[in-house]
Parts: sequence; structure tokens; C-alpha cells
Amino acid sequence: MKNMTKLDTQILEKIYAIVGHAYVEDDPVSLLSYSYDATPGYQSMPQAVVRPKSTEEIAQLLKLCYEYEIPIVPRGSGTNLCAGTVPTEGGIVILFTRMNQILEIDEQNLTITVQPGVITQQLIEQVESLGLFYPPDPSSMKISTIGGNINECSGGLRGLKYGVTKDYVLGLEVVLPQGEIVRTGGKLAKDVAGYDLTKLLVGSEGTLGIITEATLKLIPKPASKKTMLALYPNIEHAAQTVSEIISAKIIPATLEFMDQLTLKTVEDFAQIGLPTDIEAVLLIEQDGHPDVVEQDIQQIAKLCEQYGASSIQIARTVAESEQLTTARRSALTALSRLRPTTILEDATVPRSKIAEMVRSIHRIAEKYEVQICTFGHAGDGNLHPTCVTDYRDEEEMHRVEEAFAEIFEVAIQLGGTITGEHGVGIVKAPYLSWKLGDTGVAAMKAIKQAFDPKNLMNPGKIFAKAERKRIVIKG
Amino acid sequence: MKNMTKLDTQILEKIYAIVGHAYVEDDPVSLLSYSYDATPGYQSMPQAVVRPKSTEEIAQLLKLCYEYEIPIVPRGSGTNLCAGTVPTEGGIVILFTRMNQILEIDEQNLTITVQPGVITQQLIEQVESLGLFYPPDPSSMKISTIGGNINECSGGLRGLKYGVTKDYVLGLEVVLPQGEIVRTGGKLAKDVAGYDLTKLLVGSEGTLGIITEATLKLIPKPASKKTMLALYPNIEHAAQTVSEIISAKIIPATLEFMDQLTLKTVEDFAQIGLPTDIEAVLLIEQDGHPDVVEQDIQQIAKLCEQYGASSIQIARTVAESEQLTTARRSALTALSRLRPTTILEDATVPRSKIAEMVRSIHRIAEKYEVQICTFGHAGDGNLHPTCVTDYRDEEEMHRVEEAFAEIFEVAIQLGGTITGEHGVGIVKAPYLSWKLGDTGVAAMKAIKQAFDPKNLMNPGKIFAKAERKRIVIKG
Repeated sequence: MKNMTKLDTQILEKIYAIVGHAYVEDDPVSLLSYSYDATPGYQSMPQAVVRPKSTEEIAQLLKLCYEYEIPIVPRGSGTNLCAGTVPTEGGIVILFTRMNQILEIDEQNLTITVQPGVITQQLIEQVESLGLFYPPDPSSMKISTIGGNINECSGGLRGLKYGVTKDYVLGLEVVLPQGEIVRTGGKLAKDVAGYDLTKLLVGSEGTLGIITEATLKLIPKPASKKTMLALYPNIEHAAQTVSEIISAKIIPATLEFMDQLTLKTVEDFAQIGLPTDIEAVLLIEQDGHPDVVEQDIQQIAKLCEQYGASSIQIARTVAESEQLTTARRSALTALSRLRPTTILEDATVPRSKIAEMVRSIHRIAEKYEVQICTFGHAGDGNLHPTCVTDYRDEEEMHRVEEAFAEIFEVAIQLGGTITGEHGVGIVKAPYLSWKLGDTGVAAMKAIKQAFDPKNLMNPGKIFAKAERKRIVIKG
Repeated sequence: MKNMTKLDTQILEKIYAIVGHAYVEDDPVSLLSYSYDATPGYQSMPQAVVRPKSTEEIAQLLKLCYEYEIPIVPRGSGTNLCAGTVPTEGGIVILFTRMNQILEIDEQNLTITVQPGVITQQLIEQVESLGLFYPPDPSSMKISTIGGNINECSGGLRGLKYGVTKDYVLGLEVVLPQGEIVRTGGKLAKDVAGYDLTKLLVGSEGTLGIITEATLKLIPKPASKKTMLALYPNIEHAAQTVSEIISAKIIPATLEFMDQLTLKTVEDFAQIGLPTDIEAVLLIEQDGHPDVVEQDIQQIAKLCEQYGASSIQIARTVAESEQLTTARRSALTALSRLRPTTILEDATVPRSKIAEMVRSIHRIAEKYEVQICTFGHAGDGNLHPTCVTDYRDEEEMHRVEEAFAEIFEVAIQLGGTITGEHGVGIVKAPYLSWKLGDTGVAAMKAIKQAFDPKNLMNPGKIFAKAERKRIVIKG
């Protein structure tokens, strides 16, 4: 039976024997540190925190946990926003701080092979120093691990042109719940040997196995990049421009959106001279061959003007360009200063529905009298309606809850999804059937059951136990 | 119980009631026509051939088949090369000739929504007429269906730069074995609502459900294209050039390889003035912005020269360019004229191992005294060692069998896979565990069991019953 009390001494001894005493923690302070992640309002204590150093150690750990029915929660840096690493059923949190090596960069095959604990930003810097490019760039990339990115299938600002984490995972080494080690895929652009276990595991949120190594696809680094900002007195014109750019057959590297409230907050925070009297901005980047970039940016600027931008600013220097990007990247940080609790969601719609979605978010925020700022990856329809609120106010939290439920409902109605890049975790689990129907959820549960019959791998994630909505689990 | 005799009249009546009498065939001639596909040497009679016109009809059919335990084999145009549509356990072959509509091309979201029976080439032409692009281009595209492409996760000549079918499937409608209808994904660049059922279904070879609709990603059509041919007196130099081009951070749209025997045969067949006295050619295409294409082609030409090409020919006109591509595309047709039986395989290796793989194929062909021509998608390591032989010669066929087994073994040793783009079907099933280990195969079988507990969906594919190798099943 799963239980959340202290682990039996006999079991602890066995864990010590596998990873070494120094790499097991079960003191209250350590357990508390890993009882929550970046998601506000969710907390639950693990029974131990373990830092293995190898796949073999993880295999032994999983065998032990299988025998004694102890839940396992893999955790990178805990930056996820779906409570995906909260150990809701106790058990062992596995950390990858000792499995954080870049094992190989293969320039002939354009691949990088890494352990799960590598920090995303370090990976990106390393490959860029060789003239190569790893596009997925979640906002948390400075601290997130690549293992966490793979488990959640992280997206980022470059998703529109370059895709998401899944599109770059070519092969995995994974330890299955009973301790068997499987290697999927490889340094291969084409591989159809049976079901695609690689893509099934990416985004499976640690519920099917523990990823212990990954081979990722790299591409040549684009030779140049340009950044521009377009200001809109009318938010709908901004949304329309997004569709018009794509319809003109230009795929920018980045096509980001911020509404007025986000903009004001970012400007208060970063003081970079952003205008605060307009309804929306689009932050647009194109990369590639310098001539193509120049041509695209000019054409995009024309479209922005044509569809209602009041002002367009093209960065002249790398510094200016970085300043504009930083503005967008700091949105969450800035917003989180407004009130005690920030809830960042990621309802996603087909890009042609952006205007309708933004309109609906505003209507819903008014209806429930909550404060929702919206920014996000407009180019791929992945919006981040972000509610600044206060968890201590139960009545307001109830309204926040209702507002988000309605936002998800509208997203589904518009042909969208409940989560574009954050994952389901605990937070979205009650809404999963809205997207997939009961049959779709049943199919997923059947896969879970097939892999993990004892439900030990990150239990409580993806699948809701009941129709529970967002509630605070007190630690 | 599954049985391969004539279907019970009572069951036939029920099928008539679902799809209409006119769309059910069970006369010997019709059954014979669907007893085999493009894969030489595999044949088995179905019990009925049914042409439903809607998802609803398919759902009803599957419910019926589930009740009476009748196997179901979905079939597009039967162009696959893994015996993926041979009804080895009898049952009903479902055809999609009445579900062959393009339902929508959405220019704002860059998607196309199609029924499974749409011919790939028609889809490609339709979207190109709008300035859009659907890159996957299997050699069979003139007659293959998109449903077949999705079930097999077809590749093609443009895989290196643009990826394969999987990379373009955004959403599916699928009927599960018990007749439930599920819709996965959508017009969404980002969607992490649970396990990726879409990518699991792509390439699942009809073993998990029947795909009844697909939403595919489109991209803007590249503005221009250039084609070139580089001739090599030394085959290893050709292989090395492939790696050097990628290492120089150029990703051509197409990077194809043909060895001398293939070349001679194609020239005999197509009479287009190909040289036949050299060991290998590379056919290289780049597409994109005209300036970039020009620059890349010049740089590639330089690299070809530097690494041993004796002659380089850059097509000056579209007609010349098409002639060069046609040469490569007609390789299989040309080779199939040499002897009664042509076995086209698709062992795939990391691209840096192409030279070693080609060398091994030559060595193995000599060892077993069989004639193997090699051509294929060198840029993505996806080679097509093709044996021209005669199925009537049992002794020779045994040597062919042994030779291919050794080729797969070498591919795996080099970090490759047993199939890059043809699928497992019946042909590769005995070798699947070489790639994935018994644990990997067990994980796949668990998924199959979870979806299809009665094993009715295209039974006998992907998973081998015993260590059976390539043998002729007489019709």
C-alpha cells in the first residue's frame, strides 16, 4: 500500500545500498523543499529524496519501489506549471543533479546526447557555440532541465517555426516501472520499427517510466535574426495581423502577443520604455539567411501597418533586439509582483481563433470579476491567460476557478486544447475529458495501466480521480 | 474464433445493412485482388472486401467485427512493402475509395483535413496550387493514399530537410476496435493534453484502430528549387560527401544516393544519358529562397568536388531538374525489370555510417552470392538495398533471406534500425526485437493488448508469432 508516513528503515537501508547514504534525504527540511513546484497552491510531502548517479541505480530503485509499492516522482528543476512534480501520493522524489552530463555532440549526425539533469540553457549555449541550434526555448530554460522539458514536452517562443521538444527527441533511454531498461529510436531521421515509444514518452509527465538519457536533434544555427515590435491601439487588429502574416506564407521564428495589462506590468518592472497606452503589442522575430530575414521583416512590417499597427519598431542592434525579447520573457516575473498569487494558464487555439479567444478571455474576466492578463505565443495559438490573485481569498479563488474552467471550455469550442505546453499534471486533469472525450481518456488510461499496473510512476498526474478542480492542498 | 472460410450469411447480411449490398464483395475474384499487396511473396485471402462511406459506418462495422471476432485489415492502395495489408488471418479488408475527399484546406492555420482515401499526389497538387506545401513524398505517391501513408508513417526523398508523415499529422479521427470514435489533436501547433495518441497512431499499421480523418500540417511552398548530380568514381567518397555537406551546416531538401548497378539499370530503363561507368551518384536538391538555394548549391558543388566527385551537373532548367529526379524515382521500377522478384528493403543508419553500411551491403551480397543494388535517401541514412532475385528458386531465396538478416544486423550494430520508412508489417516482424530488445517489444505488445484485446485490428502485423523469417505464403 502507498503511504505517506516515513519510509520503513528496512526500505531506507535498501535505498542507501543502491545509491549511497549521502544521496538519500528524508529529513523534514529536505522533504519540505520537494513538496511543491512552481505551480501555486499544490503541496504534498514526499517520503524521501534520492539522487541516483546512473541508469543502473534507477533501475534498481524502480525494482525496489515496484516490490514495496512506493510511488516515484521524477523531478528536474520543478519549474513546471501543472503541479507535475508534486508528490501527491508521497513516495520517492528522484533528482537528476548527478546525471547532468552532456554525453556527446555529434556534428555529422547533428545530434546531442544528454543525461536528464542537463540545464536547458547550458545545452543551448553549448550547441550554439558550435554553430548549431536546439530550438525549444521554454521561458524557464535558464533553470529547467532537459529531462523536465522532455517529460512535459515543453514549448516556447520559437514553437511556431521550429516546433516543440517532441520534434527534437530522436531517441530515449528509459527505465520502465519494473526496472527494465529500454532504448528507443536513435540518431535516426527515419525509424518506423513499431509504435513510436519515443514520442509516447515525451510529454508523458513521468507516468510511464523514468527517462535516463536522450538523443536530441540539432539543426544549423540560423545565420541572422531580426526583432520588431508592432503596437496596436486595437487588440483585435493585433490578433488579425497574426493570421495575415501566416496567410502571406511567412513563418516568423517568434510571433508573440502581449495585452495592455501585461505591457504595463512589464514596463513597471523592466523600465525599458515600452508604451503603455496601447491595447496590444506583437513581438516578432525572424531568423535565417540575412537577405530572407530582411525581406520577411519588411513584408511583416507592411502587413502590421496595413492591419492597424499604430507604430512599428525594428531593432537596429542585437542589444535592442534582446531588450525587446527580454520584455516578453519577463512577463511572468513582472506579473507575479502584482498580487500574491499568479496563475499562468496555457489554453491554446488554432491561430485563426486568437482574436475570438482573447475577446472571450476579457469577457470571462469581467464576468467573474477577476484580473487576467493575456500574453503568449500568438503565432501558434498558444496563449497564456494569467490571473493575478490571492490564494488566501477563498471566495475570489472560487471565481478564478470558474473563470479558468470557462476559458478552457471556450478553447475547446474553438477547436483548441486545455494545455499547449505546460502539461496536464494535477491542474488540468479534471478537464482532460473535455478535450478527448471519455473514450480518449480511457485509451490513455489503458496505456498507463499497460505500462504501470501498480500506478507507481508519478501517480495522480494526467488522470483525475474525480471531477476535482483547482484546490489548495495544504502541506 | 477467427476463421478464413466464407463469412456466415447472417454476418454478411449485417454488413450489407451497414454499408449497402453494393459495397460488399466476397466473390473469389475480388477476394483474390485483395489477397496481396506490393510486397512480393505474401498472399492470404480475405473473407470480404467492404467499402464504407463514413466514419459512422466504420464504427458499426468494427462493433460487428468485435462481436463476431472478425479480423479487420484497412487498406489504401496496397503499395506498402512490408506486407502490411495482406489479410493473413482472413477477415474483412476495408477500402477507402468512397472516403476520398479533401474536406478543407485552411490557409490561415496552414492545415488540410482529408479523408483517408485521398491519393497523396492529388493532395500535394491541390495544396501546391495554393502556394502551400505538403513535404512527405513516398515513391508511391502517385497511387498511394494518405491513409496508407499515415498508417505506415511514410517517408520519402524530402525526409532529410522536412521530416516524414508523422511530422505533418496534427490530428486524427480514429475508430477504436470496439467501435468508439476518438478525435485526437487538432489544428494546433502545441497540444500536450495527455499522451500523444496522434503520434502513437501514425505508423501503427492499422493495428490499433481505423483512421477515418486526418488534419495535416502544411507549410509555405519553397519559392525555388535547384537540382544537381555529382558522379563518383569511388563509392566511399560519395558517402563521405553526404556527411561533409551536413557538417558544413547545409540541409539539402533531397540528398539521394545510387550505386553503379542501380544507375546502369535506371539508364537502361529511362535512357536519359546517365553515366554508367562510375561507382555512385549523389542526386542533390535544395529549395527555398532563390539566393539561398543558389548559395547552397554552389557550396555543395564545391564540397562534392573537394571530396572526390569526378563530375558535377547542375540542372539549368526545370525540365532538366525533373529528368534527374525522375531517374531516382524510377529506380525501383527499373530494377524490377531485371529479374522476376525485387525485394526492396529500408535498413537505416545514422548518416555518418552510410559509407560503412554501403560497404557492408556489398560485402554481404558477395558473401551470399546475391545481387543487391543500393540506392536511397543518403541524407537521412535511409538506404534501400534492393535484391533482384527469383522467388521460384528456393535455394537462392534462402541466401537472400540470410543476406537481409545480416544487413539488418549490421544496421542495428551501426546504431540504425530495421526499417526507416516501410514499416514492420509481416516482413520485419521477426527482427523487431533486434532493434528494441524483448522489453521494448513487450512494451509495444502491452499497448496493442490495451487497445485491441481480441487482436482483430490487422492481426499478424508488427509482432511476430515465432522467429519466422521471410517465407512465401502461397495464395
